[in-house]
Amino acid sequence: MSSLKIAIAQINFLVGNIAANVQHIINTAHAAREMGADIVLFPELTVTGYPAEDLLLRKDFIAAANNAIYTLAEQVKDIAIVVGFPEYDGEHLYNSAVVLHQGVTLATYRKQALPNYGVFDEQRYFAEGIQPCVFEFNGTFIGLTICEDVWQGGIIAATKQAGAELLLTLNASPFNAGKVDQREAVICAQIKAAQIPLVYVNQIGGQDELIFDGASFVADTDGEIVFRAAEFEEQLSVIEFQDGLPVPSHCAPQYEETAGIYQALVLGIKDYVRKNGFSGAILGLSGGIDSALVLALAVDALGAEKIEVVLMPSRYTQDMSNEDAVLQADAMGVKHHIIPIEPAVTAFTGMLADIFAGTKKDTTEENIQARCRGVILMAMSNKQGRLLLTTGNKSEMSVGYATLYGDMAGGFAPIKDVPKLLVYALANYRNSLSAVIPERVITRPPSAELAPDQVDADSLPPYEILDPILERYVEQDQSAEDIIAAGFKREDVARAISLVDRNEYKRRQSPPCIRITSRAFGRDRRYPITSGYRGI
Amino acid sequence: MSSLKIAIAQINFLVGNIAANVQHIINTAHAAREMGADIVLFPELTVTGYPAEDLLLRKDFIAAANNAIYTLAEQVKDIAIVVGFPEYDGEHLYNSAVVLHQGVTLATYRKQALPNYGVFDEQRYFAEGIQPCVFEFNGTFIGLTICEDVWQGGIIAATKQAGAELLLTLNASPFNAGKVDQREAVICAQIKAAQIPLVYVNQIGGQDELIFDGASFVADTDGEIVFRAAEFEEQLSVIEFQDGLPVPSHCAPQYEETAGIYQALVLGIKDYVRKNGFSGAILGLSGGIDSALVLALAVDALGAEKIEVVLMPSRYTQDMSNEDAVLQADAMGVKHHIIPIEPAVTAFTGMLADIFAGTKKDTTEENIQARCRGVILMAMSNKQGRLLLTTGNKSEMSVGYATLYGDMAGGFAPIKDVPKLLVYALANYRNSLSAVIPERVITRPPSAELAPDQVDADSLPPYEILDPILERYVEQDQSAEDIIAAGFKREDVARAISLVDRNEYKRRQSPPCIRITSRAFGRDRRYPITSGYRGI
Repeated sequence: MSSLKIAIAQINFLVGNIAANVQHIINTAHAAREMGADIVLFPELTVTGYPAEDLLLRKDFIAAANNAIYTLAEQVKDIAIVVGFPEYDGEHLYNSAVVLHQGVTLATYRKQALPNYGVFDEQRYFAEGIQPCVFEFNGTFIGLTICEDVWQGGIIAATKQAGAELLLTLNASPFNAGKVDQREAVICAQIKAAQIPLVYVNQIGGQDELIFDGASFVADTDGEIVFRAAEFEEQLSVIEFQDGLPVPSHCAPQYEETAGIYQALVLGIKDYVRKNGFSGAILGLSGGIDSALVLALAVDALGAEKIEVVLMPSRYTQDMSNEDAVLQADAMGVKHHIIPIEPAVTAFTGMLADIFAGTKKDTTEENIQARCRGVILMAMSNKQGRLLLTTGNKSEMSVGYATLYGDMAGGFAPIKDVPKLLVYALANYRNSLSAVIPERVITRPPSAELAPDQVDADSLPPYEILDPILERYVEQDQSAEDIIAAGFKREDVARAISLVDRNEYKRRQSPPCIRITSRAFGRDRRYPITSGYRGI
Repeated sequence: MSSLKIAIAQINFLVGNIAANVQHIINTAHAAREMGADIVLFPELTVTGYPAEDLLLRKDFIAAANNAIYTLAEQVKDIAIVVGFPEYDGEHLYNSAVVLHQGVTLATYRKQALPNYGVFDEQRYFAEGIQPCVFEFNGTFIGLTICEDVWQGGIIAATKQAGAELLLTLNASPFNAGKVDQREAVICAQIKAAQIPLVYVNQIGGQDELIFDGASFVADTDGEIVFRAAEFEEQLSVIEFQDGLPVPSHCAPQYEETAGIYQALVLGIKDYVRKNGFSGAILGLSGGIDSALVLALAVDALGAEKIEVVLMPSRYTQDMSNEDAVLQADAMGVKHHIIPIEPAVTAFTGMLADIFAGTKKDTTEENIQARCRGVILMAMSNKQGRLLLTTGNKSEMSVGYATLYGDMAGGFAPIKDVPKLLVYALANYRNSLSAVIPERVITRPPSAELAPDQVDADSLPPYEILDPILERYVEQDQSAEDIIAAGFKREDVARAISLVDRNEYKRRQSPPCIRITSRAFGRDRRYPITSGYRGI
């Protein structure tokens, strides 16, 4: 009876740091060998991390990435490794995978399906491979594929046709809500049709806007999942193939949707802070739901001792806002500061009095308050080397209900892709683990507190109506007429859409977020600022 | 003797406004008919404008663009028109051109070469056409091509092979310094090799980061330019072909390089303000060279009455800065305000005193000053509906020598792609037309004036050294070793490069600029923020 032990290296890389990634590969390969594996499979573009973006246009970077393969061939000999790298053949660059064993290259595969939609720009960098790759290892014929390849039936079938008995696939498949199910459904259907078992390894970790969720898996010839790695964690696992078939192993439980999003956000904050070398994070805590959720996420990601919060009340801030903010900070063991913004607001009001004489109060005065808070928070961030977390949600960011350089100030916007209703769901989920967000923060009507008795509902449709309209318009590209036909009032649709159309300029200057929907603002939705398009 | 009169419609579109663009096409076609033309050629993707970016993913937008062709066929009958549009065939989207005459479609061509590098993302939206297109019109066989097609010899040759005697090409070819010469050299070489005359029409106008410069031209079979339209202006011209050969006509003079860049910047400001519906512009005038140049550009673009400037001196501002700023504002007939920032700085200093107790002064205190100015300027922009112009240059933006939400605040950054030495050259050029920038602004050492006796040279290599290093690293992707080998000191290269590497997060939140180099920050250079890559 033949046996082949394949290690699945679901690991977290730092994009651009080839030397560190090579060391991580070497250490992981040795650990896999100790676990008895014959071969260890790494994620897509292992040596550079994914996505390396325009670093891939640098000759020095590509040379270093190609040299890394020689280093690996030299330093890892007692186990076969399958690693991804940007392969340069003197003319074109390929998104490739190489199999190294005992200092010899057993096979090189060039990715055939290059995604160039959504968050992907692979045709900007890579030329397409044109043929399948099968290599023999200990008597088994193994096919190689990379990520997008296995979303398309043709490549799996062609690889089997070329003699593969077993498929290995290297991936960098980013998370969004529902992605694990979608991924397994699509790929396993291809696998079942082709009747070939598959080992799928995904990277994990946060990289700017993207979260890679792991959830690596093994499917048998019928497309049944016989092993699944944990989500959002590094994991090294060994799967045994007997006579070409995978021996069923442990399937890590999957997070239900809200919990999974929460984990994604925690990982996103953790990796952004860690990989960018910040000593911790700060945020403005208003007593509202958005900053309350961001604080909970930040503490869960970094620990209370690495966080400070600032309360910055104005004359419009209700007492309960301050009370609830302090309550949560204390409950989570986080240091808080209180800096009333009145002195700065008064100063600016005086400085602008002559110029603004005779004009009416409008959002200008509200924005000044928000910007005074931005100045305070950025000063603390600068002085302490802590990352300023921006607390705005996706609903606000869609309709521009936020102040540029005010509450939009910050280096990272964890919930910028989280619609308001989901903010509430996440807060309730977090409180179900342990009550950290005061109940009143969740139940009171949302308000920016920039004018007397202001509530969001004064200027926006209720979030129960706004959020589904925004999802249809922003994420699904539905037209106004489609949305109205689905049962929404024309006036609500018109109000929401016209705000989305008008506020691209704000979004363009907003900090990066953590992408958790199928369409986040940023590289995922590339709209012109200067635009005569009106959705309604 | 056969004669064919072809109108070249070098026009300025508003991206996304299909109805307005269709009306512009109709009016232009009628004007061309009045000028005696038989056929009128428009730029690439005429009906949507270029680039429409992710609007092209909207079904309603694509439906409207395809319907626009029926409208044009119906409303323009007495002249043949060649217009570009995103053609949807029920499965794929193509970057197409259609020839309409007397209500009939004479031909449809699908662009074959889809650029997906630099600022271009066409493979994100379009499928490739697979064949040349030749149609007969009044006895002449005319081939159609679109933009990138004519940068590649194969497509021109194949179109001639298919029977074309004359080539029409629709373009949206963005400007950068030297682009006109490069464009004509590359394309005319292909034309000469294929021995087929060409009519090349380019759009003009500003669209977010991009400037389209026009400079449409006609080349004879030997690749000699026999007609050239003006740069940076709309122009409708008629060229006669006798027996298949173009009759030489007026060649508009070309701007020399610095003058051309100046014109591009003026057009960029003008179109951004006009197309986005601002009532005018404001900027902070510091007495330094950058804001002095931006003021000159803004006045040349919009007229003095649409501009206001604000002087915001601090305790570190030298008298000559204020004097020179007022001098220039007066010379250009622009209203100025003076708002000392001391009250706001004092307020913030007091508010942060407890938290900052025991810490040393650092850039935090400098940033507070810059951010107080940002708050003032944004308040004026909000109140007046005027666009805030950001005055930072490319050298600063490269090394992060700018304050996020401070001097980086604003909706549009006209000189963000202009290196400091070129800022001086442009200022001198402008003064050569009429002296508007005080001489002392040009000759004094540059300073941010955020600390006592501060000058840029304290923290940065001299611009004569810094600028060429940045050009090599940022625009040409040279490695540190390449740059050192070219004769630069290792310490200067190391200083410059490490600052570039570290400051991607700032650039990501900066306003859009006007692209005038071959590689601007923005969609042209897509770097990860989270990155372990170190150029040195």
